Amino acid sequence: MAEKYVYCFGDGQADGTVDQKNLLGGKGANLAEMSRLGIPVPPGFTITTDVCTYYYDHNEEYPKSLAQEIDVALNKMESSMGAEFGSTSNPLLVSVRSGARVSMPGMMDTVLNLGLNDETVLGLAERSQDARFAFDSYRRFIQMYGNVVMGMDGENFEHILERAKQRRGITLDTELTVDDLQGMVKSYKEVIAEKTGKTFPQDPKEQLWGAITAVFGSWNNKRAIDYRRINNIPGLWGTAVNVQAMVFGNMGQDCGTGVAFTRDPSTGEKVFFGEYLVNAQGEDVVAGIRTPQPICRKPEMPKHVQTMEDVFPKAYKTLVDIYQKLEAHYRDMQDIEFTIQQGKVWMLQTRNGKRTAQAAVKLAVDMVAEKLITEKESISRVSPEQLDQLLHPRLDKNVEGDVLTKGLPASPGAAVGAVVFNSDEAEQRAAQGDSVILVRLETSPEDIHGMHAAAGVLTARGGMTSHAAVVARGMGKCCVTGASEVQIDYENNRFFVGNTVIHANDVITLDGSSGEVFKGPIPTIQPELSGDFGIFMDWCDKYRTLKIRTNADTPEDCLTARNFGAEGIGLCRTEHMFFEPDRIEAVRRMIVAENPAAREKALAELLPFQKSDFKEILRTMDGFPVNIRLLDPPLHEFLPHGKKEIAELANSLSIPLERLNATLENLHEANPMLGHRGCRLAITYPEIYKMQARAIMEAACELVKDESINVIPEIMIPLVGIDKELEQIRGEVNGICQEVVKAMGVKVEYHIGTMIELPRAALTADTIAQHADFFSFGTNDLTQMTFGVSRDDANKFLPYYVDTEILPRDPFSVLDQAGVGQLIKIGLEKGLSTNPQLKVGVCGEHGGEPSSIAFFHHLGLNYVSCSPYRVPAARLAAAQVNLQS
Amino acid sequence: MAEKYVYCFGDGQADGTVDQKNLLGGKGANLAEMSRLGIPVPPGFTITTDVCTYYYDHNEEYPKSLAQEIDVALNKMESSMGAEFGSTSNPLLVSVRSGARVSMPGMMDTVLNLGLNDETVLGLAERSQDARFAFDSYRRFIQMYGNVVMGMDGENFEHILERAKQRRGITLDTELTVDDLQGMVKSYKEVIAEKTGKTFPQDPKEQLWGAITAVFGSWNNKRAIDYRRINNIPGLWGTAVNVQAMVFGNMGQDCGTGVAFTRDPSTGEKVFFGEYLVNAQGEDVVAGIRTPQPICRKPEMPKHVQTMEDVFPKAYKTLVDIYQKLEAHYRDMQDIEFTIQQGKVWMLQTRNGKRTAQAAVKLAVDMVAEKLITEKESISRVSPEQLDQLLHPRLDKNVEGDVLTKGLPASPGAAVGAVVFNSDEAEQRAAQGDSVILVRLETSPEDIHGMHAAAGVLTARGGMTSHAAVVARGMGKCCVTGASEVQIDYENNRFFVGNTVIHANDVITLDGSSGEVFKGPIPTIQPELSGDFGIFMDWCDKYRTLKIRTNADTPEDCLTARNFGAEGIGLCRTEHMFFEPDRIEAVRRMIVAENPAAREKALAELLPFQKSDFKEILRTMDGFPVNIRLLDPPLHEFLPHGKKEIAELANSLSIPLERLNATLENLHEANPMLGHRGCRLAITYPEIYKMQARAIMEAACELVKDESINVIPEIMIPLVGIDKELEQIRGEVNGICQEVVKAMGVKVEYHIGTMIELPRAALTADTIAQHADFFSFGTNDLTQMTFGVSRDDANKFLPYYVDTEILPRDPFSVLDQAGVGQLIKIGLEKGLSTNPQLKVGVCGEHGGEPSSIAFFHHLGLNYVSCSPYRVPAARLAAAQVNLQS
Repeated sequence: MAEKYVYCFGDGQADGTVDQKNLLGGKGANLAEMSRLGIPVPPGFTITTDVCTYYYDHNEEYPKSLAQEIDVALNKMESSMGAEFGSTSNPLLVSVRSGARVSMPGMMDTVLNLGLNDETVLGLAERSQDARFAFDSYRRFIQMYGNVVMGMDGENFEHILERAKQRRGITLDTELTVDDLQGMVKSYKEVIAEKTGKTFPQDPKEQLWGAITAVFGSWNNKRAIDYRRINNIPGLWGTAVNVQAMVFGNMGQDCGTGVAFTRDPSTGEKVFFGEYLVNAQGEDVVAGIRTPQPICRKPEMPKHVQTMEDVFPKAYKTLVDIYQKLEAHYRDMQDIEFTIQQGKVWMLQTRNGKRTAQAAVKLAVDMVAEKLITEKESISRVSPEQLDQLLHPRLDKNVEGDVLTKGLPASPGAAVGAVVFNSDEAEQRAAQGDSVILVRLETSPEDIHGMHAAAGVLTARGGMTSHAAVVARGMGKCCVTGASEVQIDYENNRFFVGNTVIHANDVITLDGSSGEVFKGPIPTIQPELSGDFGIFMDWCDKYRTLKIRTNADTPEDCLTARNFGAEGIGLCRTEHMFFEPDRIEAVRRMIVAENPAAREKALAELLPFQKSDFKEILRTMDGFPVNIRLLDPPLHEFLPHGKKEIAELANSLSIPLERLNATLENLHEANPMLGHRGCRLAITYPEIYKMQARAIMEAACELVKDESINVIPEIMIPLVGIDKELEQIRGEVNGICQEVVKAMGVKVEYHIGTMIELPRAALTADTIAQHADFFSFGTNDLTQMTFGVSRDDANKFLPYYVDTEILPRDPFSVLDQAGVGQLIKIGLEKGLSTNPQLKVGVCGEHGGEPSSIAFFHHLGLNYVSCSPYRVPAARLAAAQVNLQS
Repeated sequence: MAEKYVYCFGDGQADGTVDQKNLLGGKGANLAEMSRLGIPVPPGFTITTDVCTYYYDHNEEYPKSLAQEIDVALNKMESSMGAEFGSTSNPLLVSVRSGARVSMPGMMDTVLNLGLNDETVLGLAERSQDARFAFDSYRRFIQMYGNVVMGMDGENFEHILERAKQRRGITLDTELTVDDLQGMVKSYKEVIAEKTGKTFPQDPKEQLWGAITAVFGSWNNKRAIDYRRINNIPGLWGTAVNVQAMVFGNMGQDCGTGVAFTRDPSTGEKVFFGEYLVNAQGEDVVAGIRTPQPICRKPEMPKHVQTMEDVFPKAYKTLVDIYQKLEAHYRDMQDIEFTIQQGKVWMLQTRNGKRTAQAAVKLAVDMVAEKLITEKESISRVSPEQLDQLLHPRLDKNVEGDVLTKGLPASPGAAVGAVVFNSDEAEQRAAQGDSVILVRLETSPEDIHGMHAAAGVLTARGGMTSHAAVVARGMGKCCVTGASEVQIDYENNRFFVGNTVIHANDVITLDGSSGEVFKGPIPTIQPELSGDFGIFMDWCDKYRTLKIRTNADTPEDCLTARNFGAEGIGLCRTEHMFFEPDRIEAVRRMIVAENPAAREKALAELLPFQKSDFKEILRTMDGFPVNIRLLDPPLHEFLPHGKKEIAELANSLSIPLERLNATLENLHEANPMLGHRGCRLAITYPEIYKMQARAIMEAACELVKDESINVIPEIMIPLVGIDKELEQIRGEVNGICQEVVKAMGVKVEYHIGTMIELPRAALTADTIAQHADFFSFGTNDLTQMTFGVSRDDANKFLPYYVDTEILPRDPFSVLDQAGVGQLIKIGLEKGLSTNPQLKVGVCGEHGGEPSSIAFFHHLGLNYVSCSPYRVPAARLAAAQVNLQS
């Protein structure tokens, strides 16, 4: 049997189902499913993603049987609509749209009104009794086709339109007469011939094939590739193409078009939520060119607002029936598009709606309560990335900000940053570590990289479903849209709000939850988490086995993490404590010490500081293990580098400048990452770790003795590569621990182990494990060593590697399972082979990244550790992977 | 059965054999063997190395049965010698010496004349009819015992000796009378009591146990530990202790002592070779205090020289019989020690003699010719380290040097360096990369580290078998001894030769083959290798399977390596070619280029240079593969760093200084080792490798076309960590190669492959191998990444790691098999799993190190590559491992 490449839908029937998204794309599968549900869908057909794959595999040619299948499907559409493709009396017009497995809003091309030509336009005029509509549709079609299929620059057409309006002294498109439009059609065709050397095709079939090829071609345009990269969508998936009978929302005042969500995608509230435009085509709503009106009335709305409920009461009722049917069927919030043609509602699309993190959690919890889904299912309804958003700081409402203007609260959260006016600059500045706010009249798919890089987005135009709003919500990026007071002067890199001028690089603050825009920076505070959040996180904990710890160096961070559900500290770095102003001088005296005695004297001064730090942290983490890493960085990191600072230091340490300079010279390293640091310091200067071990154990013993705190200190020796390093240091550290425990006369459960962050440590983990109570894989350094890539220097080539897909992802964000993961597997297996009691966790950045968490779960690690704010997302990711496996 | 701890020998019998070296030590086993052969050996017994191990394992206590075993053995000695231990009439005196599994000359303690006390000394005086001899022996014994067993500083005794001589106004020890000696005995005992608070023991048994314990204790003294570290001897082996009846070479003019080799240990010539002293104890010869006389007469000797042949003709004949018997029995050159007591020859020791590289080769080849050994056996008679020596440059005999003085040609080779007068300084200076000549009156075991570090050693005293000479030959270090004109003024850091003053840091040159010492530096030339060398190397090639290539970047090095038997180039670095003065400016223009066009223009200028380099190298290596590594270092290495140089460069490149500074700033890296280098450069700047590929292929094609040279270029892409890096670059490079081959119209066999020098490359070798014709393990970088240790910075801790045995050896010299070796195994297996045709070699420093070569052989690699001078040693090592396996 030959392969089937074309799937029809319409009239309450369909060849495909919603389960065939891989083949039909999301849009095609949902159109088929809606049709099967008896929901009014303009008839059409879907050309499968297999055709896309075939097309790229076969030097951009199509399967032989495709043309015939399309002809059959077109015939079906014609009989369903009672119209004929290419007919001069009753022409069938079609749309041609992309539709990939997952939604890629606005990323690929679309052609509307296809089938119009110099003759069929007359048929449309007669049939619709509206010559103006017909010629306006034809004009739009030529423009779109010229642009999408024939590669014309849109400006050519804009220019003709502007000239036509100038000639007639009018400003609105709608004031153009039929004659004007006919003249423009002529001019459009002429400019196409002039610029491309080709004639605008009059044959509807030729038009159709041109559009299909353009849509398949758009799968590999730059913005689609960028989008896939950012959203991690494989290029191999391909897109489907949907050819569907046109229905018109712009045929008059009894027509319209709209976009809606079955619940509020920002808050998750169970209210029907959407926007519509009278007498408009669907693209007008999404593109944000006209600001649309709400579908439902809400109490707070001014009277003059004309909702769809008011304007089209019957169509509204139909729409409500449809949306309820859809939500019940899909058991998830739907994002729908519809058109009203002469009063009749046509559904153009339904899909699971994008939502904010807050909404995702509320929806998950509500739908369990409504018995729409199970607890286990609810876990999959929130993504770990979304949970991250929920925890980002918001504006401190107690601080009175200088409100500049107000737009729509398009995507919640808060953002403080310097104003930039274009996406390339946003990307560059962000790469330098700057926080920037991207300010645009409106955004377009070309701005994806800039939005991704910016801390927040502000647009002057567009509604809650405009490009900016939809994309920003998907990214979890704070966004304010439709701030209509904002007048942008791109040329001079500034914008005005009334008489106030904001220049590029001035700092502004966005509140994505209120839509307010503030001049200058405003402090941010932690989000208050809803009860739903707590319920949802409890479910996550119920369904996961991997423990989640946190990386925290201060009591404050420890408390935050505990509140977020952290089950211990996986990495407490001690070096940060050394930098506090009241300690750094003792640290420096320790470094310039010329003999062990002088070093010990300086260390003795540090002991009380370290001890009180550890005491606070251990107290905060009462009942949970606290993994403390002994000093790791090379000593030169604690010394100043500027000439003046060095002179001052020599002075304050009362040592000759030459001696300090000699010390600095002596400590200088060509490759500090591979230098004298970690446990190598302890081999050459055993006093340092001894002091730290004493501080930890004295703190622990006092807490047990004086406060009955349940302390579980874990002492971690960093950068071990050789079993004898750990054997020797463990002996020294344990000696101190025993001494303190004995002197204090209390029992304390403590463990001594090591970080596995060098390839050799993983490769020889069987010998190292004999001296370790635990392993903690330090995946940051392990990634650096395994790749031979310094994180500090990687920006010269690593972004380029990801852009050109030499690497699928930045290995410092997403664990490289093939290389680094393999080492972790070797290390784990070898470690357990000689020490089955070994506790094993991860404390690198990857401990908070969902795909990496899945990998660690499958390996059977005991825990991962991540930054406090990533703890909830990690809990969710751990539950998701456990439920999937 | 209780363990046997004591093995007796003497009277043509022995408990042990020569095969029991592990248990009896080398000296003990050989004494037993000699006794079995009927060779006159003073009777005695060996306390086994098991006792040493027991002693250190049991808190410095002895096995219970030891004391009784020793008593039995002593009785046996007494009856054999017809004397009694502790007898006042006919006392048995004994020596107590160490004897480890391998010889550690002078490293451990020895006590002679043990058994003397205030009473037995009288018995000895009567029995020998020589009171002076008896009291001199007693005095020496007390001094040695006080020093070795009781921990007295030798100066205490020297002081008493000096005072005694002053008082009597004499200068020679031999002028001391019996009274003087008796007085000194008294003073010696007094100073011991005063300094140690203990009485010098009169009980011979107590003396014996004290000496045994001192010898076992000396196994762990600093110089023994240093020696073991340098010579790679495990501390666990322990030493045996030999207790042997004293025979006296210093009982009068019919007595003597000597040391001899059965063949010439410097040249390997089949001549009996040795030195002796009349009326002396054995230690006098070795210590180099008196300059000894030759044993045999040679034609060139002045008439007045009194050889042993002249002085003791009968003993000489006996000695000749013995040495011939020993060499035939051991089938190897023997190093023997003997004593003549009142005309009778006693053998004190025989062992396989240390020899120079030249001698080792000659002995191996001669003994095969003599049918003493087989070819295969001969391979084991030369160590790869020795072969290294053979190839070191010698003095250019055509250059007239300024001869300062002449000493004995103690160890061949040539050395040029700055004068230093103590071993610590020699070590420090050498660590800084300086070439130094260690100048000493005489050397002692305390100087081992300095000799090891120095380029050459010059002593004013001592003969060809002095400490300096023996140790230097073992190390393959150039050494001139007994340069008696040299007068050293340690205090003022200078030495005189007549009126000439040489200060510390002045450069001198040694010729270890002639004994000449020159003022200033003298150019050195390559050694001419003997016919024996060629024969021996042919045997090595016959018995090895591993191919040996060389690392060479210049035609000269290539030629040297080819002459040394290299079977191809394993690593030709291209960056050195970039530094030539006529090229560096184009390189720099390439680096500061602001766009690909400017970069290509600069590269086009480099093309002819690279091409002519490659042409010369490929021509030199006619018929052999030449592996060329494309550019590897980060670009900033090609730019100057000094302010002045930067300004000059900006000027010569005609670019603003600010722009050059910006480029420098932009290229700066925190960890260049992990930075933008290797194939990462080619991903971001593909033009560079394309130029290099073109240069290689144009060179290759022209050689084939114009000169019918058989070229086999291998193009190596460095620092690959990701399969797609290699896939992409291979595509680009291969495109150029195909283009050139097509344009030139010739057939050239070329291969494209990669260096495996990142852990990730080894771990994912299965994917990488799909794009590689060959792998070359770059073990230098692989060691850096696997350990996370920068070679440039490791000197702060790595030497300490080796000193304290955290690491057994420096992993940059000797391959770390457990970690790095494991990665190589993984990489090899994975690589072959997807590409069974893959050719695999090694191009790191380890390619020339014998134990690493053995590892690579066992893994089944195709070849190793090492520096030109290490090629012969590598050929030998490859043969040895193949014959062992």
